[in-house]
Amino acid sequence: MKELSVNHLLGIKYITEEDIQLIFETADHFKEVINRPIKKVPSLRDITIANIFFENSTRTKLSFELAQKRLSADVVNFAASSSSVTKGETLIDTVNNILSMKVDMVVMRHSSPGAAVFLSKNVNASIVNAGDGAHEHPTQALLDAYTIREKLGDVAGKKVVIVGDILHSRVALSNIYALQKLGAQVKVCGPNTLLPKYINELGVTVEPNLRKALEWCDVANMLRVQNERLDMSYFPTTREYAMQYGVDKQLLDSLNKEIVIMHPGPINRGVEITSDVADSKQSVILEQVENGVAVRMAVIYLLASKIKQ
Amino acid sequence: MKELSVNHLLGIKYITEEDIQLIFETADHFKEVINRPIKKVPSLRDITIANIFFENSTRTKLSFELAQKRLSADVVNFAASSSSVTKGETLIDTVNNILSMKVDMVVMRHSSPGAAVFLSKNVNASIVNAGDGAHEHPTQALLDAYTIREKLGDVAGKKVVIVGDILHSRVALSNIYALQKLGAQVKVCGPNTLLPKYINELGVTVEPNLRKALEWCDVANMLRVQNERLDMSYFPTTREYAMQYGVDKQLLDSLNKEIVIMHPGPINRGVEITSDVADSKQSVILEQVENGVAVRMAVIYLLASKIKQ
Amino acid sequence: MKELSVNHLLGIKYITEEDIQLIFETADHFKEVINRPIKKVPSLRDITIANIFFENSTRTKLSFELAQKRLSADVVNFAASSSSVTKGETLIDTVNNILSMKVDMVVMRHSSPGAAVFLSKNVNASIVNAGDGAHEHPTQALLDAYTIREKLGDVAGKKVVIVGDILHSRVALSNIYALQKLGAQVKVCGPNTLLPKYINELGVTVEPNLRKALEWCDVANMLRVQNERLDMSYFPTTREYAMQYGVDKQLLDSLNKEIVIMHPGPINRGVEITSDVADSKQSVILEQVENGVAVRMAVIYLLASKIKQ
Repeated sequence: MKELSVNHLLGIKYITEEDIQLIFETADHFKEVINRPIKKVPSLRDITIANIFFENSTRTKLSFELAQKRLSADVVNFAASSSSVTKGETLIDTVNNILSMKVDMVVMRHSSPGAAVFLSKNVNASIVNAGDGAHEHPTQALLDAYTIREKLGDVAGKKVVIVGDILHSRVALSNIYALQKLGAQVKVCGPNTLLPKYINELGVTVEPNLRKALEWCDVANMLRVQNERLDMSYFPTTREYAMQYGVDKQLLDSLNKEIVIMHPGPINRGVEITSDVADSKQSVILEQVENGVAVRMAVIYLLASKIKQ
Repeated sequence: MKELSVNHLLGIKYITEEDIQLIFETADHFKEVINRPIKKVPSLRDITIANIFFENSTRTKLSFELAQKRLSADVVNFAASSSSVTKGETLIDTVNNILSMKVDMVVMRHSSPGAAVFLSKNVNASIVNAGDGAHEHPTQALLDAYTIREKLGDVAGKKVVIVGDILHSRVALSNIYALQKLGAQVKVCGPNTLLPKYINELGVTVEPNLRKALEWCDVANMLRVQNERLDMSYFPTTREYAMQYGVDKQLLDSLNKEIVIMHPGPINRGVEITSDVADSKQSVILEQVENGVAVRMAVIYLLASKIKQ
Repeated sequence: MKELSVNHLLGIKYITEEDIQLIFETADHFKEVINRPIKKVPSLRDITIANIFFENSTRTKLSFELAQKRLSADVVNFAASSSSVTKGETLIDTVNNILSMKVDMVVMRHSSPGAAVFLSKNVNASIVNAGDGAHEHPTQALLDAYTIREKLGDVAGKKVVIVGDILHSRVALSNIYALQKLGAQVKVCGPNTLLPKYINELGVTVEPNLRKALEWCDVANMLRVQNERLDMSYFPTTREYAMQYGVDKQLLDSLNKEIVIMHPGPINRGVEITSDVADSKQSVILEQVENGVAVRMAVIYLLASKIKQ
């Protein structure tokens, strides 16, 4: 049986193209499962998983939890706000304590870049990074690439533009790694103040003009605007942002070709995209959410197979 | 097999007497189930239900959750405080996202009257209204009527008075609809400032005097006082309210007949009713709570049957 | 079959040595279960347990929840912050409501000493005290004693010193009761201001000098320092506390014998013990956490056996 080259999913940076393809093939199976009347398999009845979220994230947590329950794993949730972390305990102590209760896998979201890597070196469990600061959000990138593959047949050779706040986005970074490993061409489009300085080292091209970017691409991944991170001197309100970097139906129709519109959610309707774009046939936003459960089932299943050996 | 005339439980206003009777017959069966040593049935192993509570409600949520678990449904909980709703997402987007994760039914509490109806028109899932603002709280009315039926043999022909803050109470409105559909006579009793202007259009009589109301009725449903909603010029403290609209043992004993005392909980002991009344044999308050689980099992089971078709 | 002499676990004060030994023998079995590939038994499929936590406690709650799930019990959680308790409901009403939903057992943490005893006298369910103010924390004492038995073969005849804030510690009080019932000798060591006045009535000796205490003992149980409870005139910072009552590797190595180091967690590394002590082979801190699940499974299993009769 094929297996992952890694024992953890810490970031797309640390996995191979073969790993990604194996995750996709496994997700194909689970996508079929979750569309059956009985959406569950008994595969992981012997696995206990702790979801440890040091940052709020209802959607990602819900998606992981459903993925785990549909694999029949035992699930415990640990929210940092109500935890002994606020009593000054170290991250390693917290996690070691949870592991001593015979937990096999930890899904963790943390505000510090590198928290997942640090943890994987210091505790004895399989770690899934559910977002570590502005660093990586690997399952989001996997579900995004899986959705492109589903919609366009393949990721290799496709042209993808990522639009918006690249600087603060773990979604952007993980997407760039995943798309490049799968052979896509990637451009980014956003205000200069929201591009990281090392952007050229990532092997992506910057296209400052949104129309040109859209004319070039097959897929546009519209990142969520975090109001508090917009530079007020450039964008006094989100309306100014929308005028330069938002996509409306008129712009989309003027392209004379069909591009796929993606968004990691939650959408600010009227900012990154207008409602008619979000709800149009070109949008695959709800497919992304559906695929998220299947892809996370695949990741957890494949990592659990390595634990059981 | 008999089935509901609706695909959602949005309010008592929208269902028929036959629907209510079918829910009661089904609840009879589930009440027997939850009194067995093994309190579960495997009926809904193929159904995933999301409890989406935009307002806190520990008891109602606990009752729904137990009902779902005893039907063997998969349950995910979504609390609005920790959700992307606070990031400005629309209600439809939030729910559509959850549904994309292959959720079949949504139990929702929301502060806006009409939120459940609005949702049912815009998303593709069965909706159960667990309270929408001051509008309806249909499962509460069903469990109240079920408890009257259990205690008095039937609801038809019975005289029920609802006491307290009718204006702000979804419990009152849903109760009025349910009791009337089942053939009971309904009076309301409360301060003028806490009666809705449209009260006469509902076909109920106002009886301002509590003693007269109690002398007339078979059942008194004592609504919970929300301190923050009392008009301070009429009731400077809850003591003044209790003197006019509270029931104590002395008043109850002076009636020279036995009436049934109900309360949707949580009780303010010494305000709506005194402790000796709450704990008396005439009180069916804990029966209401017990019946709540059976009635909610019935509602969920019957709606799920329609999904599976 | 042997059974407990009690229907509740309210405190170590209320159980016999035979009860403790029965819990330990049962925990031996469950410790073996949770180290199997499938860490579950179907024993309590017919039991519903409510965890009612009026104080935050992520670790204890997680340990109870895992214990319950591994016994296949149905579990509902009730956190006081989001509850009707904040609406002024009495403790008895809250719990009676939950019990009316056919809940068989209540695990409760509460800030008031005596809350568990009070509840056991007023509601009809098996109560497990998960900590009541500064009074008792019986499952912590059981897992501590179980860990000593595991490490040293027996508790009888062993010398145990409890170090730190004895005054505010339910862990200390429950440990003193458990260790004495099992035949251990107990000393306490801590600042005078953090010793209860009735300490001598408990039959324990005070040893003010930490070195002497460690030279005497087989086991040192290092209580957690609650910063907010330190007397600032004695200990302006935790550094001063650590100098007098903290254990570092140098002190441990200078004893010329091996003692067992325990801590109920979460550790303030560098205060009660240094990191090299916490992570040393003499520390059984993570064993305590692991044993906590097995011991709680035993307590719940044995109490549930009495319900079913």
